Amino acid sequence: MPPMEETPDPLARFRTAAATREAAGLRRVLRARTPDDDGLIDLASNDYLGLARDERLVEAAVAATRDWGTGSTGSRLVTGSTALHERLETRLRAFCGAEGALVFSSGYLANLAAVAALGRGALVISDAGNHASIVDACRLSRSRVVVTPHGDVAAVEKALAGREEEHAIVVTDAVFSVDGDLAPLAGLHAATARRGALLVVDEAHSIGVIGARGQGAAHAAGLAAEPDVVRTITLSKSLGSQGGAVLGAPEVIQTLVDTGRSFIFDTGLAPGSVAAALAAVDILHHQPELPGRVRTRARELAAMARDLGLETGDPAGAVVPIVLGPPEAALRAALVCAEHGVRAGCFRPPSVPVGRSCLRLTARANLSSDDLAVIRGALTAVAEMKVTM
Amino acid sequence: MPPMEETPDPLARFRTAAATREAAGLRRVLRARTPDDDGLIDLASNDYLGLARDERLVEAAVAATRDWGTGSTGSRLVTGSTALHERLETRLRAFCGAEGALVFSSGYLANLAAVAALGRGALVISDAGNHASIVDACRLSRSRVVVTPHGDVAAVEKALAGREEEHAIVVTDAVFSVDGDLAPLAGLHAATARRGALLVVDEAHSIGVIGARGQGAAHAAGLAAEPDVVRTITLSKSLGSQGGAVLGAPEVIQTLVDTGRSFIFDTGLAPGSVAAALAAVDILHHQPELPGRVRTRARELAAMARDLGLETGDPAGAVVPIVLGPPEAALRAALVCAEHGVRAGCFRPPSVPVGRSCLRLTARANLSSDDLAVIRGALTAVAEMKVTM
Ligand SMILES: Cc1ncc(COP(=O)(O)O)c(C=O)c1O
Ligand SMILES: Cc1ncc(COP(=O)(O)O)c(C=O)c1O
Repeated sequence: MPPMEETPDPLARFRTAAATREAAGLRRVLRARTPDDDGLIDLASNDYLGLARDERLVEAAVAATRDWGTGSTGSRLVTGSTALHERLETRLRAFCGAEGALVFSSGYLANLAAVAALGRGALVISDAGNHASIVDACRLSRSRVVVTPHGDVAAVEKALAGREEEHAIVVTDAVFSVDGDLAPLAGLHAATARRGALLVVDEAHSIGVIGARGQGAAHAAGLAAEPDVVRTITLSKSLGSQGGAVLGAPEVIQTLVDTGRSFIFDTGLAPGSVAAALAAVDILHHQPELPGRVRTRARELAAMARDLGLETGDPAGAVVPIVLGPPEAALRAALVCAEHGVRAGCFRPPSVPVGRSCLRLTARANLSSDDLAVIRGALTAVAEMKVTM
Repeated sequence: MPPMEETPDPLARFRTAAATREAAGLRRVLRARTPDDDGLIDLASNDYLGLARDERLVEAAVAATRDWGTGSTGSRLVTGSTALHERLETRLRAFCGAEGALVFSSGYLANLAAVAALGRGALVISDAGNHASIVDACRLSRSRVVVTPHGDVAAVEKALAGREEEHAIVVTDAVFSVDGDLAPLAGLHAATARRGALLVVDEAHSIGVIGARGQGAAHAAGLAAEPDVVRTITLSKSLGSQGGAVLGAPEVIQTLVDTGRSFIFDTGLAPGSVAAALAAVDILHHQPELPGRVRTRARELAAMARDLGLETGDPAGAVVPIVLGPPEAALRAALVCAEHGVRAGCFRPPSVPVGRSCLRLTARANLSSDDLAVIRGALTAVAEMKVTM
C-alpha cells in the first residue's frame, strides 16, 4: 500500500473510471418519467401486456395494501408470508402447471436463489447470452461454471458428458432479454434428461407472452410437468407488478426455503405487489388472447424495421432489438425516436456486447394501429440517421 | 460422470439433503400470517416503528399506485425511474445528510451493488457477523476478501495496513441483524480514513432507530458528511415498506448507476412502495420521538429477559436476541411464546452460528404496557422451559 503520509483519495479511482466511461459513450443518466411519459408511445418498458396501469391490478393492489399494510415486515420465514403470498403461489402453480411455487421480492433474487442453491456442488452450465442475474447466480454458486456459446445444445451436451462433477445444472433464459430469441428448450431438456442434470429456465420474458395462454416457453415445449425442469419468473414484466418466483418440484422449493440465501435473508414481497400479480394472472386466464396479440405486434415491429433496412432478429416474444453498433449511434437513435414520439430502450455495454449497442423495442398487446403509424415514422427517421452517420 | 444406462434422479440429492436438515432440526416451514396475526403480539417483524400498517403510509401507497400503476415497468435506466423515485432520493439525502442517494428494489440488491461495484479490484474487508447480502456481495466483487472477527477494529486496521491491493473497502452492518449490537463505526472510520479506504455501512437495522431522529448510526457517529463513507439502507424495516437505497458521494452513485449490476439489470421499485417509504420519512421528520421510543422498549425487553435468567445482549437498536443454543430449544421457545400470545422470531443455522440458535425479539415503538405484561408472561414460560429441558 502507499506510504501513510499521502493517503489516497478513496473516490479518485471512481472519478477516473467515470471519465473513461464518459469518453467511451457509456455514461448513464437517470431520467424520471412523468405519469404520461411526456406523451411518448412506450416501446421501452417490459409492460408487455399493458397491465401495469390496468384498473384491475391497481384496485387489487389498493385493497391488499389496505388489508395487509405497505410492507410484508420480515423475511418470508419470519413474518413476511401472508395468506396473499400463499394464494399467489397456488395460482402460479395452477397457471404454469408446476408442482410448487415460491415467491421472491424480485426476479433477480429468485434467480440468485435458484441457481446458487441448486447449483451448489454441481457443475453449472450457463448460456453466454444469459441475464446478469443468472451470471451473478453462477458466481454465487461457487461451483465450476462452463459458459456455452449462445443457444448451442451440442456444447451443452459436451459439457455434461465430460463433467467431473456428479451433478450438473443447465441454466438458460427462455427468451433472451435483448436479442429476443428463444432458447432451444426441447433440445436442452433432451440433453439434461439423458445426463441426469437439472434444467433451470428463466421465463422472465416468456411468462405471459409465450404459449397458448402465456404459461411460458417451457410449458409451450411440453416441459411443464417434468420434475427435472425448474422455472424462474418475474412478476415485473408482463404481469405488471414487482417480484419474482421459482416454479418446480417440491424438493426444489424446500431446498430454496431451507437454503436459498436470497429467500431466507430478504424481506418478503410487499402485499400490494403480490395482489397486483395475482390480478394479472387472473386476467391472463380470462383474456387468453393477450399473449398472441403481443407476439403479433412484435413481428409487425420487426417486419417494419427490416423493411426500412434496419438490422433486427426474428422475435419469439415481445422483444425486438435494432442493432446500431457503436454506443453513440444507439444513443442518437433513441433521441431520434423520442423526437418522433416514441420511447425506445437504448442498450450499450455492459448490457450488450461491445459493438452491439442497440435500440431495444418491446411490443405491447395494447399498441393501436395509430401507434404503429407513429412508430413507422420514428423508425424511418432512425434508418435515415443510420445512412447519414 | 455415472454411466449413461443409469441416469441419476436429479432430485435425489435434494431429498437426501432435506432429510439431513430435518434430522438436525433445520427444516423450515412457511407459515402464512392472517391479517391480525392470530391476535399475537408481534415481536418478530422488523416493523420497528409500527408503520407498515400506518394509515399515512397506506394512503400514500394507494395514491401512488393509482397515479403511477402497480409496477415501475423496467430498469431504472430505461422506464423504471419516476418522479416519485427521484423525490424519495431527494428526501433520503436530506434526511440522512448524504450527498447522493439511489433507490433499489430491495436492501439485498442495494448491498450487492454497493459492495460488488465499489469493491471491484480492491481488497474487501468484511466483519464476520455481516448480513448474508453482504457476504454474497463480497463474493460477487470477485476481489480478495478478508473476514475480520466481529467488531474488531484492530483486525481491520491490520488487514488495511498489510494489503497488497492499492484500494480497499471495509464493510460492516451498523446494527447487527441478530445480535443487535452496534459496530465500532468511529474506530472503523479512523482506520479507513488513515488508510485511504472506503467505509461501507449497512444501516438496515439502524435507519429510523439510531440517532436523534433516526438518521442512522453513521449519522449519529458524525460520519454522515464524510465523502469516504457509503451507507446502504433498507426501506423494508423501520420504514414499513419494501426496497433499499445506497447513500453516498456523487462519484459513488454514478458508479452504481453505470456499473452496478443489481441496479442496471433489475426492475425499479414499485411506485406504491416508493411512496410508502416517502411517507415514513415524513413521519420520522414530524415525530422525532419514535426512534427513542423503540430503543427504550428494546432495553426494557432485554432487562426483562436478563431478570428471568435468559441470555441476551445490550441492544443498540430494536433487536433483542435470546440465545437458547440448540435449534430444537429455539423452536420450542418460539412455540411457548406463541402459546402465551407473543410472536417471536426463531433463528437457527445458517442464520446464526451453530450452537447459537435463538429467539430474536424486536421492539416496536408502539408496544403498550399491556403488551409488555403479556411479553413478561411469555418470557417467564421460556425461562421455565429452559430450566426443564
Ligand atoms: C432475463 C431476466 N431475468 C431476470 C430479470 C430480473 O427480474 P426483476 O427485474 O424482477 O428483478 C430480468 C430483468 O429485469 C431479466 O430480463
Ligand atoms: C443487515 C441487513 N441488510 C440487508 C437486508 C436486506 O434488506 P431487504 O430485506 O430490504 O432486501 C437485511 C434484511 O432483510 C438485513 O438484516
